[in-house]
Amino acid sequence: MEQLTPHDVWVLASSALVLVMTPGLALFYGGLVRVRSVVNMMLFSISAMGVVGVLWILVGYGMSSFAAGEGGWAGNPAADLGLLHTDPAEFIGLGFGSTFAMIATALISGAIADRVGLGSWVIFAGLWATLVYFPVAAWVWGGGWIQNLGTALGTPEVIDWAGGTAVHINAGAAALALALVAGKRTGFAPGSHRPHSLPLVTIGAALLWFGWIGFNAGAADTPGTAGLILVNTIGAPAAAILGWLATDRLRGKKPSVVGATSGAVAGLVAITPACADLAPLWALLLGLLAGAICALAIDWKYRLGFDDSLDVVGLHLVAGVLGTLYLGFFASEGRGLLVGGDAGLLLVQTISVLGVMLYSFVVSLAIAGAVRALTGLRVPPRMEQLGIDATAHGEDAYALDVAPSLPAATARR
Amino acid sequence: MEQLTPHDVWVLASSALVLVMTPGLALFYGGLVRVRSVVNMMLFSISAMGVVGVLWILVGYGMSSFAAGEGGWAGNPAADLGLLHTDPAEFIGLGFGSTFAMIATALISGAIADRVGLGSWVIFAGLWATLVYFPVAAWVWGGGWIQNLGTALGTPEVIDWAGGTAVHINAGAAALALALVAGKRTGFAPGSHRPHSLPLVTIGAALLWFGWIGFNAGAADTPGTAGLILVNTIGAPAAAILGWLATDRLRGKKPSVVGATSGAVAGLVAITPACADLAPLWALLLGLLAGAICALAIDWKYRLGFDDSLDVVGLHLVAGVLGTLYLGFFASEGRGLLVGGDAGLLLVQTISVLGVMLYSFVVSLAIAGAVRALTGLRVPPRMEQLGIDATAHGEDAYALDVAPSLPAATARR
Amino acid sequence: MEQLTPHDVWVLASSALVLVMTPGLALFYGGLVRVRSVVNMMLFSISAMGVVGVLWILVGYGMSSFAAGEGGWAGNPAADLGLLHTDPAEFIGLGFGSTFAMIATALISGAIADRVGLGSWVIFAGLWATLVYFPVAAWVWGGGWIQNLGTALGTPEVIDWAGGTAVHINAGAAALALALVAGKRTGFAPGSHRPHSLPLVTIGAALLWFGWIGFNAGAADTPGTAGLILVNTIGAPAAAILGWLATDRLRGKKPSVVGATSGAVAGLVAITPACADLAPLWALLLGLLAGAICALAIDWKYRLGFDDSLDVVGLHLVAGVLGTLYLGFFASEGRGLLVGGDAGLLLVQTISVLGVMLYSFVVSLAIAGAVRALTGLRVPPRMEQLGIDATAHGEDAYALDVAPSLPAATARR
Repeated sequence: MEQLTPHDVWVLASSALVLVMTPGLALFYGGLVRVRSVVNMMLFSISAMGVVGVLWILVGYGMSSFAAGEGGWAGNPAADLGLLHTDPAEFIGLGFGSTFAMIATALISGAIADRVGLGSWVIFAGLWATLVYFPVAAWVWGGGWIQNLGTALGTPEVIDWAGGTAVHINAGAAALALALVAGKRTGFAPGSHRPHSLPLVTIGAALLWFGWIGFNAGAADTPGTAGLILVNTIGAPAAAILGWLATDRLRGKKPSVVGATSGAVAGLVAITPACADLAPLWALLLGLLAGAICALAIDWKYRLGFDDSLDVVGLHLVAGVLGTLYLGFFASEGRGLLVGGDAGLLLVQTISVLGVMLYSFVVSLAIAGAVRALTGLRVPPRMEQLGIDATAHGEDAYALDVAPSLPAATARR
Repeated sequence: MEQLTPHDVWVLASSALVLVMTPGLALFYGGLVRVRSVVNMMLFSISAMGVVGVLWILVGYGMSSFAAGEGGWAGNPAADLGLLHTDPAEFIGLGFGSTFAMIATALISGAIADRVGLGSWVIFAGLWATLVYFPVAAWVWGGGWIQNLGTALGTPEVIDWAGGTAVHINAGAAALALALVAGKRTGFAPGSHRPHSLPLVTIGAALLWFGWIGFNAGAADTPGTAGLILVNTIGAPAAAILGWLATDRLRGKKPSVVGATSGAVAGLVAITPACADLAPLWALLLGLLAGAICALAIDWKYRLGFDDSLDVVGLHLVAGVLGTLYLGFFASEGRGLLVGGDAGLLLVQTISVLGVMLYSFVVSLAIAGAVRALTGLRVPPRMEQLGIDATAHGEDAYALDVAPSLPAATARR
Repeated sequence: MEQLTPHDVWVLASSALVLVMTPGLALFYGGLVRVRSVVNMMLFSISAMGVVGVLWILVGYGMSSFAAGEGGWAGNPAADLGLLHTDPAEFIGLGFGSTFAMIATALISGAIADRVGLGSWVIFAGLWATLVYFPVAAWVWGGGWIQNLGTALGTPEVIDWAGGTAVHINAGAAALALALVAGKRTGFAPGSHRPHSLPLVTIGAALLWFGWIGFNAGAADTPGTAGLILVNTIGAPAAAILGWLATDRLRGKKPSVVGATSGAVAGLVAITPACADLAPLWALLLGLLAGAICALAIDWKYRLGFDDSLDVVGLHLVAGVLGTLYLGFFASEGRGLLVGGDAGLLLVQTISVLGVMLYSFVVSLAIAGAVRALTGLRVPPRMEQLGIDATAHGEDAYALDVAPSLPAATARR
């Protein structure tokens, strides 16, 4: 019987690492929302694990890669139906891929805190995974047009190691579309919605960084690449924490947990496409920039007037674009414009950014519009005012009062 | 010097994964109890790590497997005494096994929230691990009667890959026995005991699912088996989340974090015995069923009148039985009744379920009775009313009031 | 292209495990402080990941090991500058090492709860990592004087597998120095500062134990060594939980989560230097002793009058010394005094303990004094009284009140 290879084991371990990122996101997002919306927000991520996990096994794995010579919009969804009887040689990869689809979809939910019903979200999530994530994954990693763009244009191939376009720009553009369709929360204004638990935010960020080691390095099958990715997936977010805190200080803002953890996430997003193709010192610089730029970018929503509640755009779209384009300047092996190359790589990186951003934004707008027509998308204003947890879920996130469960007689004494 | 094999590394990583499940359970259970009992509940799991961890190294590893040709109730406890000087070739397996013994024992504690002293629990846990878990593990995995039942009856061998009988039915039956001996909480009634922290429940469930990848796949030493298990350990709980939420919706209940996370756990329990022997589509169906059935099963305790506080029976016993018997119908390689086989596998699966359930229930009843005779088992009613954390542990789970630690002079101003 | 070896994969996985220890520490420490200082305390660990992560990549990796034949205070910091272009063959080890530097530095911060500004801490952390941790790591693991002490004195070589001296004694002595320079908190007295969240303490301890598997076993490259370490990293803390709880019981203290989790940490610290060189039964005994001794040791600060707020000295220094010296008595292969050896090993273990303790204490005192001269180190008394989170960080750890974010009109009704 065939034996496990070292890389098999690494992908298995990485699958566990990436799997825990989605509940990690539930906690990160859950900590950032108001106490009246925690249940709703956590259920967005948990339900995404349910619906996307099942869809990936049914059709997603087949849709996300093209058979040899095949082309078009997406791979063959029916390929998965063979799973009843097929030889399980590729099941490790299938499992690993499912965890990416889950987290990519769940990321979007940060845009719609406090105001969208779970049923509407589940429909959106299922349609988005099927119509957007699965095809885009095929374009970027499954032999599709983005993966072959360099050959077509006579430039180096597009670099997106672990999902700058396929995951972060993709989810970020979808978040913008969904936020626009959903509209603003009642009382949307700077400082109006305080995070309800910074320890919870820290727990979530911890699981995200931890899992990101597998997210970025899981596909590496040589010690050189895996080691480089490991160093960059530690160095870039470390520098980004400093970049965010320094930027806040220069602006007269106090050092905060929301800032430091958001900085780490910004650095992780930026290094995602670039982790295998940047020397460590350039990765540190990218992290520093990502922290600084995203610290500024999250304020844009107030100026531009869209309520991307938890800054999916300001973190994932902005840092995803930054990291993907940064490769055009600094990609190793002489491909980047500033390290010995020409503008060819920058060109195809830009095209891939624009292609994914445009596709995801437009299709997400259509899906969100369709869901709004079907379900209304938002809960009634009264439910939003009273708190979506209590009204739509019948659950409060916390029951910390000591008294209520005492027998009435005792409590009255 | 002998080098690490890929499977060695996978078992090492899996040991870490399964190790974190028991504190994960402390958090899952801790979040589900009232705020006045969190310390007590978390200490049940933490102390189980202490007492079972030590016992496993002293006698458990030897008791949980039979030497070649040997038979009987349990393996040789004295085998471990050689650990002072022995060659450490099998230490990786010894470490991996310890994590299973810890979590299996800790699972039981969900049945006795709010009312049992830590000393009583520690005695029960030590006796249960020694008299129930170690022998049953030897029966199922260590060359005992369950593992050889198929040969004896001329059927396929019993399938229990990662512990449907040895862990979940075993712990579930013990939980029922312990709940019966401990009796009901004061004020036991539907809806009387609200979970105090749903974020904590989510953290616990996250660590459980994460660790379950190692729990189910750790023993797999081929890429085909490991990959199949990975896919099924993601797919079944994903489907079970949907199954639970759909069942609640059909019954007019709102979608809840307790439901979604309990659904995931139900799916994970059900797939545990079956993860290496079901095609992925059948695993999805099993998960769906597990979510739906357990959503209904957790209400039985109110009708039947036993206070299994956190539904160890409704989740672990029910889903454990479901997954183990489901194999009788759908086990791959033509063994299941509905996929080309005959009733032989179903027969031995049923016998193994009944054997473990009966043994664990009866012996657990005896142990619980003995502990009750020795310590009283329950804390005095007054301590239960005032809150077991404050009275038995001198700790409150939270101290969130800002004022008390200010110097009195300042506070008065 | 060179393929991943099993050990490569294990170091990659272990790097993720150790990486999550520092946010785990943020949560452990964060749960132990008062509710008004949680943000400040968590930011100490998070910022240590930033500043030490970057410094390690810039200079630390080079400083922490000596080139062949080289000697002196530390390795060559400029070695890292080659990272722009170098061959990445050693990047896996570089990444693994960064996670040790982070956690070692972050450990110190437990000594200064409630009263030190983040800027002061960041400067201290950067200087301490550079002037203390990097050189000491070179002494212990990078070919320095401690690693060669046995050869010099004609005894067995010093044993410090995973950092009893380099990490725990090092950080513990620094914590003592920093606590002395910072001075006591306002109102420092036994029982004056209640932990604000025991679930958070449990989460932190869970991530620490989990990650410690990688911390201790990551460098093992044979199944025998890795397996022995795995067993000991489970057995010692398990025994230490029992040792702490038993000691508390004998003293008339109630069993507590703070005690049980601190016991686990004490056992983990003690086994850190010794995990590869003790038979499992001796590891259990060491754990038991560590739990019992540290349960007593954490009270010394009140008698001696230094405010090591979260007991970095009582846990890490005390248990680090215990584990390192215990090897002198029980080290395997006949090296320990009580298992067939002579006093030679005990001698060099003692010298290494004293050497690191003295160096770290003195240099940390100097760094802390310099920072105090530069920034004042402590926040103004008024900020400490009002709560450092609200005043220095503009963040409260929690916003659990349901009302405030309702529109005023609604709230008034």
